[in-house]
Amino acid sequence: MTEQKKKTTIVLFSGDYDKAMAAYIIANGAAAYDHEVTIFHTFWGLNALRKEELVPVKKGFLEKLFAKMMPRGADKMGLSKMNFAGMGPKMIKQVIQKHNAMTLPQLIEMAQEQDVKLVACTMTMDLLGLQKEELLNGIEYAGVAAYLGDAQDGNVNLFI
Amino acid sequence: MTEQKKKTTIVLFSGDYDKAMAAYIIANGAAAYDHEVTIFHTFWGLNALRKEELVPVKKGFLEKLFAKMMPRGADKMGLSKMNFAGMGPKMIKQVIQKHNAMTLPQLIEMAQEQDVKLVACTMTMDLLGLQKEELLNGIEYAGVAAYLGDAQDGNVNLFI
Amino acid sequence: MTEQKKKTTIVLFSGDYDKAMAAYIIANGAAAYDHEVTIFHTFWGLNALRKEELVPVKKGFLEKLFAKMMPRGADKMGLSKMNFAGMGPKMIKQVIQKHNAMTLPQLIEMAQEQDVKLVACTMTMDLLGLQKEELLNGIEYAGVAAYLGDAQDGNVNLFI
Repeated sequence: MTEQKKKTTIVLFSGDYDKAMAAYIIANGAAAYDHEVTIFHTFWGLNALRKEELVPVKKGFLEKLFAKMMPRGADKMGLSKMNFAGMGPKMIKQVIQKHNAMTLPQLIEMAQEQDVKLVACTMTMDLLGLQKEELLNGIEYAGVAAYLGDAQDGNVNLFI
Repeated sequence: MTEQKKKTTIVLFSGDYDKAMAAYIIANGAAAYDHEVTIFHTFWGLNALRKEELVPVKKGFLEKLFAKMMPRGADKMGLSKMNFAGMGPKMIKQVIQKHNAMTLPQLIEMAQEQDVKLVACTMTMDLLGLQKEELLNGIEYAGVAAYLGDAQDGNVNLFI
Repeated sequence: MTEQKKKTTIVLFSGDYDKAMAAYIIANGAAAYDHEVTIFHTFWGLNALRKEELVPVKKGFLEKLFAKMMPRGADKMGLSKMNFAGMGPKMIKQVIQKHNAMTLPQLIEMAQEQDVKLVACTMTMDLLGLQKEELLNGIEYAGVAAYLGDAQDGNVNLFI
């Protein structure tokens, strides 16, 4: 008889570099702890999953506007505090380097290596006009029902 | 012997349109999943429960100031990101309409129809000078002890 | 045979006065409810644990800059909404006084009296250049693994 694995689920709503860092640090920690881990990216949190390069897809006017205004990928995201028009993220990245800590793109890569389930919320992808081609490879697509299916058995459930 | 219902509790602290949408989408999803669902509105989250019309109640100076500065009802709330002095909420409402998704007021109405327990935090109502007459009908009033009573048996507990 | 105590864990990521108030109100409520309570302070939430007085410690350039720009202690923190360059916090403190509610520093003191475990995240202390001498006495120091150890048995786990 095998013991059931513990579960951690995180809703990543925020599009801030620092909050996404916190989400991925907890997720990677939980995966190292042998939890089954899911990060459900919704609203601005979807930006952490965007590819850095511009992917040519057909979009309506509003969708183009959103795509333009939102950061393309984890490395471009701003801070929730002391952003100072991009100065803050530079400072954070410098101290990360200095302390041999991991940047957000590195944390995301590590999560994928550790089999953290990265999910993009299809409903908010529709709203913001994001298409699968624009998001990282190897992620899953689902809605709130799938999230709740995971979360209702979760030991640690967080909204970030 | 009947199985106990699963429970979802959400503290809605935020007064942002997009965060409140996320809270109500999860709440409605959980209710559809047959969870017992509570949304505990505190601080700026109370604004989602304000009636749209001006309700004449007696207030002190500071309370009047808060009432003036805070959005009167869900429809008036701003975005947590890309608010652009109100442009952002208009864009979001346009894409919601385009995709036949639900606006925040519609999500709140649906939650009430699905018997999601909507609670206003009495302590923060006092602080912000909000009175029962100013809030939607059919909601409950309680403090942090009642919230904890629900949350400690919750399967999914979130702070938004 | 004694029943196991219920557990509440809060990650305090935010450096906002109002969000920290919510965190400490829930924590104190849970402690009164006889829960074992932990607040894990990370990123900007560490500022709630800073001593008010300037503590002379050696720092690098970036660390000095962070230390300068971040609020020194709970009383100096701003609001997440309607901060208005410090006007908002003054208003909140006035209504707190008027309603005989507790200020954030008082809530923190109460938490310490109630044996709420206050933890400072060592990894983000490093990043932001905060040293133990600069933080309140009587707190603990740990990383994400210790947090997860507490949270995975938690009944109420929140990220604020």
